[in-house]
Amino acid sequence: MEYEEYLTQAMTTMAEAVERQLRDLLPVPKGPEGRLVEAMRYSMFAGGKRLRPFLVVTSADLFGVDKKYSLRVAAAIECVHCYSLIHDDLPAMDDDDKRRGQSTCHKKYDEATAILAGDALMTLAFEILADPATHPDALVRSSLIRALAGASGVHGMVGGQMIDLASENEELDMGEITRLQQLKTGALICFSVEAGGILGKASEHMRHLLHGYARDLGLAFQIADDLLDYGGDPEEVGKATGKDAGRGKATFVSLMGPERARRQADILADQAIEHLREFGDKAILLKGLARFVVDRRK
Amino acid sequence: MEYEEYLTQAMTTMAEAVERQLRDLLPVPKGPEGRLVEAMRYSMFAGGKRLRPFLVVTSADLFGVDKKYSLRVAAAIECVHCYSLIHDDLPAMDDDDKRRGQSTCHKKYDEATAILAGDALMTLAFEILADPATHPDALVRSSLIRALAGASGVHGMVGGQMIDLASENEELDMGEITRLQQLKTGALICFSVEAGGILGKASEHMRHLLHGYARDLGLAFQIADDLLDYGGDPEEVGKATGKDAGRGKATFVSLMGPERARRQADILADQAIEHLREFGDKAILLKGLARFVVDRRK
Repeated sequence: MEYEEYLTQAMTTMAEAVERQLRDLLPVPKGPEGRLVEAMRYSMFAGGKRLRPFLVVTSADLFGVDKKYSLRVAAAIECVHCYSLIHDDLPAMDDDDKRRGQSTCHKKYDEATAILAGDALMTLAFEILADPATHPDALVRSSLIRALAGASGVHGMVGGQMIDLASENEELDMGEITRLQQLKTGALICFSVEAGGILGKASEHMRHLLHGYARDLGLAFQIADDLLDYGGDPEEVGKATGKDAGRGKATFVSLMGPERARRQADILADQAIEHLREFGDKAILLKGLARFVVDRRK
Repeated sequence: MEYEEYLTQAMTTMAEAVERQLRDLLPVPKGPEGRLVEAMRYSMFAGGKRLRPFLVVTSADLFGVDKKYSLRVAAAIECVHCYSLIHDDLPAMDDDDKRRGQSTCHKKYDEATAILAGDALMTLAFEILADPATHPDALVRSSLIRALAGASGVHGMVGGQMIDLASENEELDMGEITRLQQLKTGALICFSVEAGGILGKASEHMRHLLHGYARDLGLAFQIADDLLDYGGDPEEVGKATGKDAGRGKATFVSLMGPERARRQADILADQAIEHLREFGDKAILLKGLARFVVDRRK
């Protein structure tokens, strides 16, 4: 219990720090384009766990990286995450009206503004990473950008979203769902952890361990998400639940049933923690997070 | 006349080279995400003058940059240009059914696929630039990325698009229209020329000259575009004309009238050419291009 409080506290502190960073990076300009930045800020500061930023900063901490660097990378990744949510919520995509208990970006503004806000957030992510303020070593910056682009494009997040759309009325099997999720949500989670290793110029071996952790964590996270959609309280979750079943969408829960899915998420969390054994107590937050993502109720 | 043929030939050769490059960079993957890449390729290989790639390669040539580098940068910028067209054509934006004489991406596929294809093309642009194959010096790669992101985001292309949407029923004056166009189309044209300077590690002075050229060229290009919309033949232009007037949109032509706009475009082309005087005959293609953009009929 004491430990859980420690993690929650660390997550809150980190979320606040990354939000300060993001506010600095998103000043509202004068002129008609100000509305665009307002829409970006509206979606960006709608709450959220800031899980990916937490992963960046916490994994960078393993290697003693200055937070002035890792917080900027954390902000960049949150821009990508936020852009993906704005575009996913669009009428042509998932057509969602609510996100984190408030109107989605296209509902609050309009579709055109939401499309552009997403585009601009993605662009901002790369602009942040390419800025020398993010790391003095250009090779580090370039490696971060390459890894982020790889994780977000056709062979990552956007590809996963395409598979998701294409398979709305298809019966996916476990292998296919796992692949879909590894692209759609897993790739960006993996990058978040990988970014810490890039910033810290970690050894191949260390990066390998981090990657194993991130892979299991990402899958555990997704199964927990499916469980929340299946059985969560919409008030607490902050968005409509039961959507997947309503759309006849195959999920880990629809394929395995809730009990097996729950067990599977627990096993994955244990595995994730096991990958970090070598890091000992230094990795206590990352280990705690693995438990947190499967136990969370929103 | 002989000279014009030389330029046209060079543009065709360069367009073919950059298209080969793009085909290599866009292999269609197996699985349901293949549709996404098909949509990207559909829009990417719909023709087009490849003006921005031509600017990259030709300005890089001034500094003797190996084409294996400049062609990759050219491909990246064409990805950004193409993504912006796909998103601009969406029903929530300009709602265009035709582009370069064929159905727009969302008409040929669907809106969701078009949104994702745009997203994936933008991501690909940064992935290309961050790849060591684009330039062995990470500082060059990082500078290219920073400049491209700056030119494409809130303070560039996307910001310009936002202003354009926000001012559909506003009376813009010359200053406002100039600013809109400098963001919406000018920024990416400036980056294309700037990229040659970055790749060639050009001196501050050289970059300054190139920037002056690109600024005038961009504006001349936009006025010529407005003139085509005003008086062009839809068959020849490859898309509907008279759209701006139909929407009551202020353009350079609506503010200045076609004769003054034509003269202004000519003056800007002359100015653009003048900026490159120091480069002498080495800049013959860039100079010719300035004439070409104002004289083109599509």
